[in-house]
Amino acid sequence: MGEKILVFDSTLRDGAQAEGISFSVEDKIRVMETLDRMGVDYIEAGNPGSNPKDIEFFNRIKNAKLKHAKLVAFGSTRRGGIHVEDDANLAAILDTQTPAVAIFGKSWTFHITDIIKTTLDENLKMIQDTMAYLKAHGKDVTFDAEHFFDGYKADPAYAIDALLAAQEGGADYLALCDTNGGTLPSEIFKIVTDVKSKLSIPLGIHCHNDSGLAVANSLMAVEAGVRQVQGTFLGYGERSGNANLSTIIPNLQLKMGYECLSEAEMQKLTSSAIRIAEISNFTLSNQMPFVGKSSFAHKGGMHIDAVMKNPASFEHVPPESVGNERRILMSEVSGRSTIIQLINEVDPTLTKKSEETTQVMDRIKELEYQGYQFEGAESSVKLLIRKELGKHKPFFTLEDFKTIGEKPHSDESLSSSAVVKINVDGQSEINAAEGDGPVNALDKALRKALEVFYPTIKNVRLTDFKVRVIDSKSATAAKVRVLIESSDGQDIWTSVGVSTDVIEASLIALTDSIEYKLLCDEEKK
Amino acid sequence: MGEKILVFDSTLRDGAQAEGISFSVEDKIRVMETLDRMGVDYIEAGNPGSNPKDIEFFNRIKNAKLKHAKLVAFGSTRRGGIHVEDDANLAAILDTQTPAVAIFGKSWTFHITDIIKTTLDENLKMIQDTMAYLKAHGKDVTFDAEHFFDGYKADPAYAIDALLAAQEGGADYLALCDTNGGTLPSEIFKIVTDVKSKLSIPLGIHCHNDSGLAVANSLMAVEAGVRQVQGTFLGYGERSGNANLSTIIPNLQLKMGYECLSEAEMQKLTSSAIRIAEISNFTLSNQMPFVGKSSFAHKGGMHIDAVMKNPASFEHVPPESVGNERRILMSEVSGRSTIIQLINEVDPTLTKKSEETTQVMDRIKELEYQGYQFEGAESSVKLLIRKELGKHKPFFTLEDFKTIGEKPHSDESLSSSAVVKINVDGQSEINAAEGDGPVNALDKALRKALEVFYPTIKNVRLTDFKVRVIDSKSATAAKVRVLIESSDGQDIWTSVGVSTDVIEASLIALTDSIEYKLLCDEEKK
Repeated sequence: MGEKILVFDSTLRDGAQAEGISFSVEDKIRVMETLDRMGVDYIEAGNPGSNPKDIEFFNRIKNAKLKHAKLVAFGSTRRGGIHVEDDANLAAILDTQTPAVAIFGKSWTFHITDIIKTTLDENLKMIQDTMAYLKAHGKDVTFDAEHFFDGYKADPAYAIDALLAAQEGGADYLALCDTNGGTLPSEIFKIVTDVKSKLSIPLGIHCHNDSGLAVANSLMAVEAGVRQVQGTFLGYGERSGNANLSTIIPNLQLKMGYECLSEAEMQKLTSSAIRIAEISNFTLSNQMPFVGKSSFAHKGGMHIDAVMKNPASFEHVPPESVGNERRILMSEVSGRSTIIQLINEVDPTLTKKSEETTQVMDRIKELEYQGYQFEGAESSVKLLIRKELGKHKPFFTLEDFKTIGEKPHSDESLSSSAVVKINVDGQSEINAAEGDGPVNALDKALRKALEVFYPTIKNVRLTDFKVRVIDSKSATAAKVRVLIESSDGQDIWTSVGVSTDVIEASLIALTDSIEYKLLCDEEKK
Repeated sequence: MGEKILVFDSTLRDGAQAEGISFSVEDKIRVMETLDRMGVDYIEAGNPGSNPKDIEFFNRIKNAKLKHAKLVAFGSTRRGGIHVEDDANLAAILDTQTPAVAIFGKSWTFHITDIIKTTLDENLKMIQDTMAYLKAHGKDVTFDAEHFFDGYKADPAYAIDALLAAQEGGADYLALCDTNGGTLPSEIFKIVTDVKSKLSIPLGIHCHNDSGLAVANSLMAVEAGVRQVQGTFLGYGERSGNANLSTIIPNLQLKMGYECLSEAEMQKLTSSAIRIAEISNFTLSNQMPFVGKSSFAHKGGMHIDAVMKNPASFEHVPPESVGNERRILMSEVSGRSTIIQLINEVDPTLTKKSEETTQVMDRIKELEYQGYQFEGAESSVKLLIRKELGKHKPFFTLEDFKTIGEKPHSDESLSSSAVVKINVDGQSEINAAEGDGPVNALDKALRKALEVFYPTIKNVRLTDFKVRVIDSKSATAAKVRVLIESSDGQDIWTSVGVSTDVIEASLIALTDSIEYKLLCDEEKK
């Protein structure tokens, strides 16, 4: 592999500034462990001087042993007019006992005179003093030159002086920050090239995505000689976010020939991304480059044909290289070549031109019009094909159900109850259950009734439940689409239901999920 | 304003390839109207040769008059070995009667020999013939050189020959496509610079986002001399999407000095983005540069202080310049300076250090821990503050409710019914309603009961209803967060509720919405 680029992740610090993120201490520990296992070089984990929760985190992990990464505590240069030893924030940083620290300081004259209101001279001393003090304590020190590019554009000589002060103080890395995210890629390249010619210690880059350019700007900085790249693993951050490391890393390693992670960890990039999104309580964006669910999903008919001939025709890197997978989507645009594969599983004699194929396509279009989306719900599609081809034998029929929700409810009982009556081969079975809400109650009652006939249902767990309001402008009478993911410990499958009533939509998806399980059991026999 | 860059939007064609998008003909018309009003130059609306729905669309709008934009039909060069006049796809394109067409053809030798399986020579003739044929029919013709950058890297001479064939045939624009989205910004700049030196007609650029670089690549191409930029308005597209025009346009116009839209339309960019996302049935990503809800949202305590002093300290452009707005977020990170402003609306004597402020902050943290998120739900926060300060007089109490869901239900009645009993100043009122599902029934019954006491409730409509499953791994027993947006025709407000029961969560949000309306009415008196 090529030259090493140091990966500096700030998901736990700058990422925590994102709207909608609120990490618990346990969340932070899980993110830290995931990043360390991946082989990230620096994990910036918090700002002990400004956030009490971060102090708790650093206390909790004082004895944690990381395999590879250096843990980083973040803070600012000493305040103006005081001695470094009297600065409470720096004391809080030393208290964390992390091997590395990242210290931000000002390099834009406007911020010095108008925001922190000190002199340009004192600011340089604040930087140099703070670096020297932390180096004397044996720290690996990165100086984050906040607003560096805006500062350089306003007063290049002073911006460089700020970096020289940090170099003089003994900093190990100088990270140039595009704090407001407003700089263009060509500007980044030009400015970094100039800076590099004037400084002797290694440079870093820290970009924000306000112009949609954080990834490109980071790559341009590396082309200009930077060797430490800061970002957050999934681009989470204040405003439009930070540079997305899950995009930058494969670009650097798979395209530009640098080394960031081991090959084995690169091939797990997608699952690492899913894990960090989950801990952050965000759904990973389908479109996210390299790691998104759609990144290697083909929908256009011509594209699908070409990818079948040779994947390189419409894929810039192999999906396996980042642990993702190729998906062929079903839709009116993708046409018959996709659906025929599924139809042939049921009846190998049918072709694209068969009348039955048209019938299946028409039914899919009709349901899509009603608000269904089958792209993620293969089990519902397989059942639909069987139904349209007359090959579906229902495993049960739902004769009747009733749900009752009540408030006030006693402390012991749950808020909802459901009664379900099913019929299997002429034999009726009625059962009831309580649950957290009507859907949960119905789910439990239905399973209880079905287990009498189909004991394998006991092994099925619902592993995911998503509700999407389709036409949210209709408010509480809006259509909802429910996606249910189920697992029997070996396989995972997803089914879908649509209705204006969340109970009915759930029931449709639930029924498909159970029928699909029973169908698979039968086929295995 | 500066030199004009032509904006070429393909939301309706390439955007329709995105996973999860399924435009109806009506949707397409609404998107077209929005783009035209904005002042986009070209609207690529479909591929009549491959998609029957697109033919229907073009038939429907044959007599539509666009104010500014040219409508574009998309298709490929003639097939190999046949005469242009015998090509069914080209005939379908001419049938649409659009003033402009975009024709893609091959420029990567690998695609010619391995995918479409014709000779390199015949491919050049296919390009030239097709251009000449469409020019003879009076069309404004753009040639999309598919996979141009991959083609150039593999065989620069042939890739240029393909462009020369199009130029020779009379094309008006040559759009260089990074179809697989794998090219780096510095490569784009170098290649476009070379191409420009060898061709005399204007160039365009068409980027995909597989490497997270589509916006940067488009800007680099403009720096190298391109004058037509293709993309989709919100970056929707196959795999990781297309170049996002809502990001590219403000970069070009506000930072690089080019002209794309009128200033008035630029100042409506955010509402145009929200509209197109809505029609596409996607939630606009909060993080989306310039137009996202979080793009100008500040959460870090130090950042908020600085932005209050001078917005330029942490904003790359003024939010008003793109019709967005600055937001100060409430959270444990933002601290007390945000919440105190809301507290002072109720009690101006309290300060950041008051005991009551701590009490409010603690309650917010506790609820956030339970799954609440107040960042988008200001009305729930305002009520919470009143409750904590003992200044809240409830306008009603909910004594009792019951919901019943049933299947099979007759065709006439809706699937759910609800009974609600409320109390206002000691006076009870019971009422009932049917609805699409239990939430809708409850919503209606509650309003009916309340209108007896508060007639202004009649004017309140729920305008948006969102359900988010918080811990989806708990499946049907998962916690859900319900966000309700309400309007009385003058104001819009949002409230939030969390519970494991979707009915209860909805009821909490509904109650807050109504209480907030009544509170505002009272304060106006």
